[in-house]
Amino acid sequence: MRTVTSVLAMQRQASRWKGQGTRVGLVPTMGYLHEGHLSLVRRARKLMGRHGVVVVSIYVNPTQFGPGEDLSRYPRDLARDGRLCREAGADVTFVPHNDQMYPGKEAGAYSTYVIEERLSKVMEGQSRPAHFRGVTTVVAKLFHIVQPDVAVFGTKDFQQAVIIKRMVRDLNFPVKIVVEPTVRERDGLAMSSRNQYLEGGLRTQAGVLWQAIQKARAAVRGNPRPLNAASFKKELKQFIERQPAARVDYIEFFEPATLRPVSEISRGAHMALAVFVGTTRLIDNGRL
Amino acid sequence: MRTVTSVLAMQRQASRWKGQGTRVGLVPTMGYLHEGHLSLVRRARKLMGRHGVVVVSIYVNPTQFGPGEDLSRYPRDLARDGRLCREAGADVTFVPHNDQMYPGKEAGAYSTYVIEERLSKVMEGQSRPAHFRGVTTVVAKLFHIVQPDVAVFGTKDFQQAVIIKRMVRDLNFPVKIVVEPTVRERDGLAMSSRNQYLEGGLRTQAGVLWQAIQKARAAVRGNPRPLNAASFKKELKQFIERQPAARVDYIEFFEPATLRPVSEISRGAHMALAVFVGTTRLIDNGRL
Repeated sequence: MRTVTSVLAMQRQASRWKGQGTRVGLVPTMGYLHEGHLSLVRRARKLMGRHGVVVVSIYVNPTQFGPGEDLSRYPRDLARDGRLCREAGADVTFVPHNDQMYPGKEAGAYSTYVIEERLSKVMEGQSRPAHFRGVTTVVAKLFHIVQPDVAVFGTKDFQQAVIIKRMVRDLNFPVKIVVEPTVRERDGLAMSSRNQYLEGGLRTQAGVLWQAIQKARAAVRGNPRPLNAASFKKELKQFIERQPAARVDYIEFFEPATLRPVSEISRGAHMALAVFVGTTRLIDNGRL
Repeated sequence: MRTVTSVLAMQRQASRWKGQGTRVGLVPTMGYLHEGHLSLVRRARKLMGRHGVVVVSIYVNPTQFGPGEDLSRYPRDLARDGRLCREAGADVTFVPHNDQMYPGKEAGAYSTYVIEERLSKVMEGQSRPAHFRGVTTVVAKLFHIVQPDVAVFGTKDFQQAVIIKRMVRDLNFPVKIVVEPTVRERDGLAMSSRNQYLEGGLRTQAGVLWQAIQKARAAVRGNPRPLNAASFKKELKQFIERQPAARVDYIEFFEPATLRPVSEISRGAHMALAVFVGTTRLIDNGRL
């Protein structure tokens, strides 16, 4: 397995692959890889077969972090990431530096962004105003640099996956988006690099996100009539905040394709939530 | 020569070209072609050689027109455009329909845009607020559909060319941008599909844009000291508006790479202007 750090070298390699008809699969990550990421890499490996190549990008993208968020303390372990990528079947890790991804940004020279104007307004987009603009921009950049035929994303960032699919369709990227299921810890906690932050009793309390999704699922499936979203939100908020370190940022029920909130929750509706556990902000989602 | 109207068919063809290592040149136009466009097509032909292909896109992009602008009356003549493209050496004209370029736009489903936030704020961007967002978005789409190695633009839309180059650099499009000189009528008027609108005496009066550039050039070159931009703007405005149907929208002097206005004009500065001649808005620019 090879590590490429230069944007130009990566793009040249990708153009060579293109010219040879080699299929390319991309797994964009921010590193500090866990089983969730590795399931994406394995899926990309499978999709590309023996003759294709799998690139894992590892880049903590500063433009998707807001002021006061955890950009500076975001966990990093490149040596371990490289080892895990190789074992999961990657051919290349692409690990670019900020000064190559956003050259001249401090001097004000960098000035182009990809924005999604509807799906990115709710939930994560409401809590983290510039987040999705950073995501769509960096994903567009990675698509141009690596020129993948297929890119694999995880379901844990459900809204992100919906927005990326929208971006690909709207801007006609010649890329197929594949979305893989969330990988969970034994107690149901969705795998996340940020779980690292959960010390002591916080780790146990973090299980409440998954418990809330399970509770909602049971309520929807056990009930012959749709649930009222507003009152059920309140109930879940109370349930979650029984954990002493948990504070709900949002709970939302919506149509999965459009992210449009529903006022009545029935089977097939999607639920997403963001919860602070101590100072760590966790997200999760599930189909009800 | 072949005409492709389906976005999907064009993208599939482009992907086949990519996989075969065939080089692709793109000339994006809004049709109603004139010698200016054809010089771009010929340049693309030359750059691609015999083994490459040249695609001319013909699409009057609605998102780059503001309310009250000339979208609906923009001139169209596809039969003539096709003939001219063939003669100039194009292999394919790509003529997509709105419902394929912006599917679901009326229903609010289309929601992704490419924006440039600095260079697009001045001059044309100030006079036509959503214009460049429409331009960068449609050019990004065309780049993804046609997947060109090289795209050729004209100097008449100088600011557009600077913004496209910025977009390509910022978002890492694997495309080389080539910018060709403006082609002019005998009296210096820059070729433009909009010259079509100039009836009767208006056509003669339209020569004043080029005369103003020439006048500025002579003043800068004949003067040992830099000119004061503010007072020279006034002088040129008066000069232009001596034509009874001419009304200046803006005159700007700036550094060509950054579009930053200069307060003192010396050699190498760039001048751009927009002038209404009757109801027709014309633009031009030149190096001083």
